[in-house]
Amino acid sequence: MSEPSGILIKGGQVVNDDCSVISDVYMENGKIVEVGLDLRIPGGARVIDATDKLVMPGGIDTHTHMELEFMGTRAVDDFYIGTKAALAGGTTMILDFVIPEKGKSLLEAYDCWRSKADPKVCCDYSLHVAVTWWSDQVKKEMQTLAEEKGVNSFKMFMAYKDVFMLKDSELYAAFSHCKEAGAIAQVHAENGDLIAEGAKKMLSLGITGPEGHELCRPEEVEAEATQRAITIAHAVNCPLYVVHVMSKSAAKVVSNARRDGRVVFGEPIAAALGTDGTHCWHKDWAHAAGFVMGPPLRPDPSTPGYLMDLLANDDLSLTGTDNCTFSVCQKALGKDNFTKIPNGVNGVEDRMSVIWEKGVHSGKMDENRFVAVTSSNAAKIFNFYPQKGRIARNSDADVVIWDPKMTRRISAKTHHQAVDYNIFEGMECHGVPVVTISRGKVVYEEGRLTVPAGHGRFIHRKPFSEYVYKRIRQRDQVGKPTAVERKPYEGKVISV
Amino acid sequence: MSEPSGILIKGGQVVNDDCSVISDVYMENGKIVEVGLDLRIPGGARVIDATDKLVMPGGIDTHTHMELEFMGTRAVDDFYIGTKAALAGGTTMILDFVIPEKGKSLLEAYDCWRSKADPKVCCDYSLHVAVTWWSDQVKKEMQTLAEEKGVNSFKMFMAYKDVFMLKDSELYAAFSHCKEAGAIAQVHAENGDLIAEGAKKMLSLGITGPEGHELCRPEEVEAEATQRAITIAHAVNCPLYVVHVMSKSAAKVVSNARRDGRVVFGEPIAAALGTDGTHCWHKDWAHAAGFVMGPPLRPDPSTPGYLMDLLANDDLSLTGTDNCTFSVCQKALGKDNFTKIPNGVNGVEDRMSVIWEKGVHSGKMDENRFVAVTSSNAAKIFNFYPQKGRIARNSDADVVIWDPKMTRRISAKTHHQAVDYNIFEGMECHGVPVVTISRGKVVYEEGRLTVPAGHGRFIHRKPFSEYVYKRIRQRDQVGKPTAVERKPYEGKVISV
Amino acid sequence: MSEPSGILIKGGQVVNDDCSVISDVYMENGKIVEVGLDLRIPGGARVIDATDKLVMPGGIDTHTHMELEFMGTRAVDDFYIGTKAALAGGTTMILDFVIPEKGKSLLEAYDCWRSKADPKVCCDYSLHVAVTWWSDQVKKEMQTLAEEKGVNSFKMFMAYKDVFMLKDSELYAAFSHCKEAGAIAQVHAENGDLIAEGAKKMLSLGITGPEGHELCRPEEVEAEATQRAITIAHAVNCPLYVVHVMSKSAAKVVSNARRDGRVVFGEPIAAALGTDGTHCWHKDWAHAAGFVMGPPLRPDPSTPGYLMDLLANDDLSLTGTDNCTFSVCQKALGKDNFTKIPNGVNGVEDRMSVIWEKGVHSGKMDENRFVAVTSSNAAKIFNFYPQKGRIARNSDADVVIWDPKMTRRISAKTHHQAVDYNIFEGMECHGVPVVTISRGKVVYEEGRLTVPAGHGRFIHRKPFSEYVYKRIRQRDQVGKPTAVERKPYEGKVISV
Amino acid sequence: MSEPSGILIKGGQVVNDDCSVISDVYMENGKIVEVGLDLRIPGGARVIDATDKLVMPGGIDTHTHMELEFMGTRAVDDFYIGTKAALAGGTTMILDFVIPEKGKSLLEAYDCWRSKADPKVCCDYSLHVAVTWWSDQVKKEMQTLAEEKGVNSFKMFMAYKDVFMLKDSELYAAFSHCKEAGAIAQVHAENGDLIAEGAKKMLSLGITGPEGHELCRPEEVEAEATQRAITIAHAVNCPLYVVHVMSKSAAKVVSNARRDGRVVFGEPIAAALGTDGTHCWHKDWAHAAGFVMGPPLRPDPSTPGYLMDLLANDDLSLTGTDNCTFSVCQKALGKDNFTKIPNGVNGVEDRMSVIWEKGVHSGKMDENRFVAVTSSNAAKIFNFYPQKGRIARNSDADVVIWDPKMTRRISAKTHHQAVDYNIFEGMECHGVPVVTISRGKVVYEEGRLTVPAGHGRFIHRKPFSEYVYKRIRQRDQVGKPTAVERKPYEGKVISV
Repeated sequence: MSEPSGILIKGGQVVNDDCSVISDVYMENGKIVEVGLDLRIPGGARVIDATDKLVMPGGIDTHTHMELEFMGTRAVDDFYIGTKAALAGGTTMILDFVIPEKGKSLLEAYDCWRSKADPKVCCDYSLHVAVTWWSDQVKKEMQTLAEEKGVNSFKMFMAYKDVFMLKDSELYAAFSHCKEAGAIAQVHAENGDLIAEGAKKMLSLGITGPEGHELCRPEEVEAEATQRAITIAHAVNCPLYVVHVMSKSAAKVVSNARRDGRVVFGEPIAAALGTDGTHCWHKDWAHAAGFVMGPPLRPDPSTPGYLMDLLANDDLSLTGTDNCTFSVCQKALGKDNFTKIPNGVNGVEDRMSVIWEKGVHSGKMDENRFVAVTSSNAAKIFNFYPQKGRIARNSDADVVIWDPKMTRRISAKTHHQAVDYNIFEGMECHGVPVVTISRGKVVYEEGRLTVPAGHGRFIHRKPFSEYVYKRIRQRDQVGKPTAVERKPYEGKVISV
Repeated sequence: MSEPSGILIKGGQVVNDDCSVISDVYMENGKIVEVGLDLRIPGGARVIDATDKLVMPGGIDTHTHMELEFMGTRAVDDFYIGTKAALAGGTTMILDFVIPEKGKSLLEAYDCWRSKADPKVCCDYSLHVAVTWWSDQVKKEMQTLAEEKGVNSFKMFMAYKDVFMLKDSELYAAFSHCKEAGAIAQVHAENGDLIAEGAKKMLSLGITGPEGHELCRPEEVEAEATQRAITIAHAVNCPLYVVHVMSKSAAKVVSNARRDGRVVFGEPIAAALGTDGTHCWHKDWAHAAGFVMGPPLRPDPSTPGYLMDLLANDDLSLTGTDNCTFSVCQKALGKDNFTKIPNGVNGVEDRMSVIWEKGVHSGKMDENRFVAVTSSNAAKIFNFYPQKGRIARNSDADVVIWDPKMTRRISAKTHHQAVDYNIFEGMECHGVPVVTISRGKVVYEEGRLTVPAGHGRFIHRKPFSEYVYKRIRQRDQVGKPTAVERKPYEGKVISV
Repeated sequence: MSEPSGILIKGGQVVNDDCSVISDVYMENGKIVEVGLDLRIPGGARVIDATDKLVMPGGIDTHTHMELEFMGTRAVDDFYIGTKAALAGGTTMILDFVIPEKGKSLLEAYDCWRSKADPKVCCDYSLHVAVTWWSDQVKKEMQTLAEEKGVNSFKMFMAYKDVFMLKDSELYAAFSHCKEAGAIAQVHAENGDLIAEGAKKMLSLGITGPEGHELCRPEEVEAEATQRAITIAHAVNCPLYVVHVMSKSAAKVVSNARRDGRVVFGEPIAAALGTDGTHCWHKDWAHAAGFVMGPPLRPDPSTPGYLMDLLANDDLSLTGTDNCTFSVCQKALGKDNFTKIPNGVNGVEDRMSVIWEKGVHSGKMDENRFVAVTSSNAAKIFNFYPQKGRIARNSDADVVIWDPKMTRRISAKTHHQAVDYNIFEGMECHGVPVVTISRGKVVYEEGRLTVPAGHGRFIHRKPFSEYVYKRIRQRDQVGKPTAVERKPYEGKVISV
Repeated sequence: MSEPSGILIKGGQVVNDDCSVISDVYMENGKIVEVGLDLRIPGGARVIDATDKLVMPGGIDTHTHMELEFMGTRAVDDFYIGTKAALAGGTTMILDFVIPEKGKSLLEAYDCWRSKADPKVCCDYSLHVAVTWWSDQVKKEMQTLAEEKGVNSFKMFMAYKDVFMLKDSELYAAFSHCKEAGAIAQVHAENGDLIAEGAKKMLSLGITGPEGHELCRPEEVEAEATQRAITIAHAVNCPLYVVHVMSKSAAKVVSNARRDGRVVFGEPIAAALGTDGTHCWHKDWAHAAGFVMGPPLRPDPSTPGYLMDLLANDDLSLTGTDNCTFSVCQKALGKDNFTKIPNGVNGVEDRMSVIWEKGVHSGKMDENRFVAVTSSNAAKIFNFYPQKGRIARNSDADVVIWDPKMTRRISAKTHHQAVDYNIFEGMECHGVPVVTISRGKVVYEEGRLTVPAGHGRFIHRKPFSEYVYKRIRQRDQVGKPTAVERKPYEGKVISV
């Protein structure tokens, strides 16, 4: 082969989620071979100087919707552009969602997503599958997906009434089956009935602009559903993962449940950590519409800092983006009616920078916690740790070299995504990814992406993730309720 | 008439919810005519010496189910026995529930209840009506009940799946219509889906005894539903009243909502304030079954004290009993399966004593708060204050004379209810009702009841209770969301 | 006498803390004689038409510092101007603070305050006394004040190190003695040590402007001291009253303690309910300095709404103002050093309006709760209810007639206080006091004050307020810890 | 040397705080040389079969008081016996406290402790130093200890009035200096003033038995001080470590502070996780006295489970024991007066078992979290990670082999400590340490200890632990308050 297969990163501060240490890292054939000082390296290896820089596990974005068809249009970032942008931002893996229509086969939808993604992805990826209806077929397909297709997480919607929403008894059934299959139950937690009524009410009050989107689903609608999902999951002793925790009150519900010992994980997203919903009240319609997503960004400006505090403290566990991008002309489908604005914002490229800026630079968390929430915890929960999420011997060579002293300014003018605006426009970020390595190849360097479509691979995830299921299993064993032993009642019984 | 119409209570400490003062009370023709010292009284009045005693508004039990047909049998306390027992305990009014079957007319059910109660009741009473299904007819009948029939409170069940339970969208509709009719929405807050699943699970684990009742509906099932009801009510800006708050966690949900400004009232009941659910684990089946009610008494023994603290602090507002009594031979219908044990416990007679003992004697609340939570607040919320709930000129002459120094021991052997056990058996109570006056007549004295069936009257309650609706109305006026004023979007719109 | 002694207020809505009712009110010789419809009134009575207006108990401001000598200057509102302004705003009684210097006699200070106030006051008043040091003399004088001088409340400072501050062991002693004397312990709750250090730190960072005042004593400094005071008071079983609760976190501490059953009362003030501490960051020094008080107004703009929610919900109990006014030229003593800005703001005139606007007009509380928090609760806690705080027969004729439909705009240009600015400048208030009656005389009407200096009287307050002490006493009786009965230990004891 | 220097542990499940993996571990010369499968091992190595067993980092007990002279007697476990017992329980390092008398040199006390411990210790150890008074000398000695003596943690007492207690201003100074020296401030958090008063009160009520110990210092006394310490530490931006968190309320204070972003760590101890304070009410004096320690074990029986939940959830961080053992004849010094009962309980031997049983076996935490809370987090916080606290190349060969399927019953009859009772007497524990390796030597095996006195070494800990100080430093840099820029005030200033 002409290309040198080995790469040596020299002199950097290797950052894992437990500690940081000055160390060299040598990788070959897509794997990290050795971490340490004074390594003996074969000739021909490329050497990258990382002095004064941080060498971290590549980011894992737990929540994207590339090229999703939604609300009458299609997200502009496809698997190619979206994953390239991810790499430019230091993210080396995404988890996207397969969302079958109600009544349609999960397996077919999965196959369809695979066939779209496999030839395009520039970084590794995996797939969550949404359960948008309930039947014996769905149950069986969940089992097949878990056992054979590398899917250990299923998402249920409590919102999008009549479209994706499950009712409580279906949630109970779906959670029960997740448990049986060793999967993690994920929920979009908003009360769909209240949203439907709220939307009608806002329109009836003449509120048609983007602000109506939040007004019809204030944060208690999210908090309520979050509490409900946790209660149902606990009834089943099923692990729960709350996607896109958007509000202080919902985050508090998750945090309190964790204190009570619930096996529940909360995922805030870059948007909610880096900006807020006041933008939906912006006088310029296009600006306002750009921030419409569900659950909404909250108008309470103390939300991002609060979520970051909880993320720093492990009340929230890890981060995604819900990257689902629609350009202004697409958003404009809802120019006269906020319920028709395609929901979604960007994030896949800027997540790492935003969290560094608002989390690490601000002093809320250190670089090790940064690695945990951008990478390691995702790998642990979704069961591919330490294959990913750690700089260690035998781990995948997905690495980002980070310059904590450099700064950059986020802008749609310079970003790599297809969408024509950026919700973080103008944000000055300390901490810049200078080199991204995916599967042992340098794919981003000096601001340039050098990666072909299809470079990434689908990551097969096994069920019964130890990180999640060890406690679940033990509780099943030791926590069973038992009957009181009594003599039979032998008194009179009324005749009916 | 031979009987002297006037009664003068002399020398007592008159206790209202705002303060206590030594004062005489003169009543005539069912009304209090004067309160003060050195009153000029017409001749012939009977004089009752109340020196060293408290003269308080008669108790109001907000929650009873006299002679209810339920789970295949009928509650043994009918309107006659039940209201006599109430009087013996110092309670001079009850609010019972009309519960139509799913699909049946609310008005007809109301008429039926009236015709059962009117000839029997020994004290004044009123009726809440349950909304157990939803249709235009129900809506219309709610309006009629509120406008013409003296009903300003409707109860919705979130439990009893397939029997009484409404789903969320129906709750939304029902709450909306309560609001329109000026009524108070009441909820039985438990997640009916989870209970149904939980019951199946317990039976499958071989747990058939009374402990299974609580195990299948632990307190988070109650707390979840409470949170959900509050959220839905807030979406509608409808006042909410949570009947029988049974657990610490549900009580906390109510309390926190009140702090956030929600117009919500929590009603703990005598059973939950005076005893706990550990009894359901009792080795004697009959004993255990006697404590089965829904939502269940909680096995956490710190529950009663906690609820009393919240009641003392106005986090919870007032007290009922859910008095719905089944004798042991009726409970025995569920001797092999806890789901068949008729749900219900006693309380209507002992409520006042239990709250005095655990609330006032313990130092958690004073006598004025006692009056508030046993009487005045019920009258305020349900809109017949100060007709009842206060010792004042022009108020109804429903009075209890209370000896705070006497003690009595509660026992099924001595109680006046028809049921053959008592959940408070053996409790020593400081504070004893020595004389009860209903509608200006002494009906209980020296341990003897002297009251004929039909002595009581139906109390017609008008809608839009000021105590409840003043804030609701004001919020409707000043709290409406408004649209952002914007220039129309004139950019490109994607074509679909 | 030429002036007709009787006044009949006709046709108004009489508002008490328990309910509102259309009623006439007749008063004579400083007392309310009758409340009802169709009253028989002696000839010569003046008749005031109150149709469509509210007739409420005059406001009671629990916290003022008229003409206080403080930080090198003297508050500009003296007892004459200050109480006149109070009347113009609908307040008919104030409670001011006697603050003896460390080491000085409490009795002498009391006499001094009386001699200043008695000839000047235009409305009734009473006095709290501060305990700024500790000794046997202080203890004895507290007893005398409580038994003979009409003082049932003593205030202790946890701030103002080396000036007024007591240390924890002194607080314990002072609280113990309050308990013995039947008085209410009041605290200024801020950690004085931290403030002293914080002030040094801010100055060392070059922060000399008004913002430094808050920066050196952020809200956790208040919350900490509040928690500490509550803990100490509970150790003694002494009722506690936290003056000027200024922050969300301190208010939460008080609220949580009440839930736990502590006999503690929180007093927010008009300033904190109506404006916030962002003003201290204002670019204009004089503007910023005008908002400096201790504890500081908080820069978190959600503070006023939060405090009002808690006040509405009885987590906080009643309201004062801490009215202690310094004109701009006095504030200017600290122009180069925020620690020298005399602390204090206005409020005595506008309290009622501000609370109506932010509390009642906003829908957070109704008019009855308004009466409770502006008047009745003060009378109950400080033991002169129902002499004041209620429109009822035999109560003092201190009344305000309130027009809920009128509006007025607050301004220093039109206010009646001596201070040359107003922290509520420009606030539009719904709800205007149109007539104020003090001691049975119309003292304010059609915007004009007609009251002579010395019209008011000192209100003698007896110890052991029932509202406060009933629970305290009962707990002392039933809550004593008891020893475990054991056989003596008879084993080996090591020799020392 | 005759003894083979290398040890190979084969076939075990290697458990670190991030994950578990089947792996062999080879160690030599006190260090772990290699972790992996199919290792190439030099001949002569001893092979230990760990199939079906867990191979974990040896436990680190963060809180012991070996041979402490206290309350007139000396703890019976000296550094020899105590550390041997530690090894028998799977603990391979302890951190003991140097406690100088008020007024005495910290350095001299440190030297004294070193000279006692060095020749005796059977496992590695390190020392915290208590700051029991304040002066320039103390300040200087703290600096020396941090820079030269391997001490990066100083403990301040808020209790033990007149003996060890510092007042708030001294705490402020001590915390400030910890910060400057890069040390962690530790506190014993109880309000010493309240304890002193409480003790007097209990004795005056005739309560002389062990129950008096808790009654005079109920949990709010602990919670208050905890809140105060956190507030003071935050004012200084100093990391805080709360030793022996004993109550639910104090633990909640710590947890809430962490949510707010405070750099604070809570250390529960084995005693509080495994038993409770009801024992102090035991009828047998000797039994009751055995559980007396400060802060006390709490009589609320839900305490241990609650603390374990928080420990599992990282609201509490790590575990110690406060092992300070007095035999019954020593406890008997307080047979007539609880204030004279020497405070202290056992724990150093049984900590690992108790936490496994109540934490892991119960399903509250998994084995990885077990390693975190018994070992890794201590190493991270106190700055010797990954030297200890991890099974990894180059880490110290301190290892415990754990059989999760075996059980043992704790008893004073079989334990290795010198004390003649055991607070965990009779507890059945799943999970047994079968082999303990310290510094690369098997020191405990088949129930036998084979370790000489002095086998352990003092572990020198550097200041500015990265795990603790990264956030502290960053906050200092980015979080400084800034002054508002204003034009100078040029108006009138009152003349004084």
